[in-house]
Amino acid sequence: MTIRGYFHSGSALVATMLATTSAHAQVERVADYGDAATRIIQTALTDSNAWHRLAYMTDTFGPRLSGSDNLERAITWMLSVMEDDGLVNVRGEPTMVPHWVRGRESVDLILPRETPLAMLGLGGSVGTPPEGITAEVLVVSSFQELTERAAEARGKIVLFDVPFTNYGATVRYRGNGAVAAARVGAVAALIRSVTPVSLNSPHTGAMNYDSTTTRIPAAALSVEGAAMLHRMQDRGQRVVLRLRMEARALPDAPSRNVVAELQGREHPEEVVVLGGHIDSWDVGQGAMDDGGGVVVSWEALRVLKGLGLQPRRTIRVVGWTNEENGLRGGNAYRDRHVTELDNHILAIESDGGVFAPRGFGFTGPDAARAIITAIGQLLQPLGAERVFAGGGGADIGPIMREGVPGAGHQVDGTKYFWYHHSHADTMDKLDPREMAMNVAAMAILAYVVADLPERLPRK
Amino acid sequence: MTIRGYFHSGSALVATMLATTSAHAQVERVADYGDAATRIIQTALTDSNAWHRLAYMTDTFGPRLSGSDNLERAITWMLSVMEDDGLVNVRGEPTMVPHWVRGRESVDLILPRETPLAMLGLGGSVGTPPEGITAEVLVVSSFQELTERAAEARGKIVLFDVPFTNYGATVRYRGNGAVAAARVGAVAALIRSVTPVSLNSPHTGAMNYDSTTTRIPAAALSVEGAAMLHRMQDRGQRVVLRLRMEARALPDAPSRNVVAELQGREHPEEVVVLGGHIDSWDVGQGAMDDGGGVVVSWEALRVLKGLGLQPRRTIRVVGWTNEENGLRGGNAYRDRHVTELDNHILAIESDGGVFAPRGFGFTGPDAARAIITAIGQLLQPLGAERVFAGGGGADIGPIMREGVPGAGHQVDGTKYFWYHHSHADTMDKLDPREMAMNVAAMAILAYVVADLPERLPRK
Repeated sequence: MTIRGYFHSGSALVATMLATTSAHAQVERVADYGDAATRIIQTALTDSNAWHRLAYMTDTFGPRLSGSDNLERAITWMLSVMEDDGLVNVRGEPTMVPHWVRGRESVDLILPRETPLAMLGLGGSVGTPPEGITAEVLVVSSFQELTERAAEARGKIVLFDVPFTNYGATVRYRGNGAVAAARVGAVAALIRSVTPVSLNSPHTGAMNYDSTTTRIPAAALSVEGAAMLHRMQDRGQRVVLRLRMEARALPDAPSRNVVAELQGREHPEEVVVLGGHIDSWDVGQGAMDDGGGVVVSWEALRVLKGLGLQPRRTIRVVGWTNEENGLRGGNAYRDRHVTELDNHILAIESDGGVFAPRGFGFTGPDAARAIITAIGQLLQPLGAERVFAGGGGADIGPIMREGVPGAGHQVDGTKYFWYHHSHADTMDKLDPREMAMNVAAMAILAYVVADLPERLPRK
Repeated sequence: MTIRGYFHSGSALVATMLATTSAHAQVERVADYGDAATRIIQTALTDSNAWHRLAYMTDTFGPRLSGSDNLERAITWMLSVMEDDGLVNVRGEPTMVPHWVRGRESVDLILPRETPLAMLGLGGSVGTPPEGITAEVLVVSSFQELTERAAEARGKIVLFDVPFTNYGATVRYRGNGAVAAARVGAVAALIRSVTPVSLNSPHTGAMNYDSTTTRIPAAALSVEGAAMLHRMQDRGQRVVLRLRMEARALPDAPSRNVVAELQGREHPEEVVVLGGHIDSWDVGQGAMDDGGGVVVSWEALRVLKGLGLQPRRTIRVVGWTNEENGLRGGNAYRDRHVTELDNHILAIESDGGVFAPRGFGFTGPDAARAIITAIGQLLQPLGAERVFAGGGGADIGPIMREGVPGAGHQVDGTKYFWYHHSHADTMDKLDPREMAMNVAAMAILAYVVADLPERLPRK
């Protein structure tokens, strides 16, 4: 089916979805962008610039934890190259960010045999005393089991050995394990890394404290290590660990949201914003989480500019800072632009990796969804035509809560959590052509929304 | 098709393969073991004893490098439990083994940015001076490229960044990389780990020196690290590393081949030997390489004994020592038993992991192959009926070269090299039911060969 054919055959259904005939007209207009979409796809796929830029950035500056020199050097480099690209209004918008540092850290099995275990402290954790914490281990499989065995937990290191089911379900142990363990008198909390696949490869990520419980150190073991300790406990063996962590929070540090624009030719004050987060955890390279999201957004603007496709409205790329452990970038963006949010037409975030594109999730009124769905058809050659219910991203959450429609970039996530927040989040996992396909998908969505004669409906 | 049906329908073809009518008769007799095979499979699959024994051994003693206390403690434990199982002639047959120790080791990227890289020294490597070796890196993709760029290699650390194609092809760089690099004046040799999949997880393994070149230190980087250094070089960046390794060879140490038997009721002097190697590298748990091979062999005897299936000939389980870095166990077995090798009917080795069984590779005369092929049909319920051309194992190589027919246990090897020689060779990768299936496959092959009225033909 041709793109135009799709709109005609679906028009009766689409009409019932539309709040206004104006929006209906917009849907029909989307098909006019078929040629532009084709040119964008062809151009994006002619080179591997996105992959090479991301490789240069991540190889040169390394992982980019909030507060680190790595992050600020990467931001400065990006701003400089954006200027070279001829983007406009290139700027770092300042915000203060948390500055947690890992320091040296280790977990040693002491009993029943001595051996070091692979581990990563969780982001935000307090450290241990310099001599470490040496204590017996209580392994549990769930919060429920900890509740049932609460009497056994006092003075122990609690290990949550919870197999990965899905990220949302399993990551609760990373977020809340320390509070739950402290509540029953534990002296430290460990988790099995949140991943479906492990090669003795631990995964970090944010954890929380609350105001009612003692702040105890928290770290992730590898799947392998956690499983072994669980087996030892199941055999009735006494398991003793020594945990050492130098982790500590330093005073907040200055950082910046990276911002650059392709200015609109008719309504420069109306903005389609797209981007990802420029910060990462302090392991691996932060290539897919989320250097890739920032770079494909940036490249989308470069491709549009190279094609001379200046839309009616402004397209703004943002590399938000501090998504991982504070969301200060997303909040600062909202605060700084709060008076302009009525003119934020759409916010698009890419923060799920830059594997083969699948489409977008969308959060907004039905009339707008009909238009996004129509644009999705332009992404068919990329296999990225699907528009899922609900979409957004952590960084655009603050402005979405102010009424800005949001789209979340969706890709093949099959292996995303193999790498996420670990030393394996590196360039070699990413494919140059798939990254280029994501550039095209982001560029087409942003361009069409920015160029349609009328604004995307808000209501 | 029933098992008996298979033999009859195939009998015309089989007949042409047989050197003697006696061997033909043996093939027909194999079908008589259908009931025994069924009982063996049912019994082996009723429990997870193999998995639990291997887990206990690997959790308790850890990896088992030749010369280590870990290895000797595991051997002593195994001999003790074999006695408890009621096996006979349980003994450790002594041999001296190489005693290489890793010590502390590290690779730090110095330029273009400072960061530690994941690494494992290669087994047998010399160490560096205490201050390490700091040198520029030359990355090459092949021995051929090193030859072409030989003039650039002097005084540098050569990194062979060779993608995994198959083990045999890629492992040449691990084995011979140091000699090739030293020959062109390099001061150390690094390889990309020999694996198709990496989560920043380096793989060790044996490497060689020769008498004509300087012994330079050799280590493996992760796939991720090697790829990053290669990208840096491709960008024209100067790459400098500091390699520190305390690796050294200590005097040879005593070890033992683990031996136990189920004695034959008619020809106790005739032996079917089966086993794996009890030593491992010094990382992970040595669970699939090759604790699993030893334990499924051992369990095969326990199952047969439990069923009261005492064969005509003796079945001997052997856990050979020092397969990984010397093969002293396999050689010592040959030397000690050299006068008995005419009475070694078949040697079976399991050293490819204990994933879902597929069958056996076989090396021996056609008349014997016809019998092994017939026994394969008894393994159909396990999916292990295939008999591949050529088979054996490193540890049984020395006795196979003296004329003993050899069989190599074949399993689903899809992921074997993900884990092999790395910290990820651990129990969680192994499935209790698949291990039990391997026990059954090993037990059936060994039992039928040991019990057939006539010996497996040698010629």
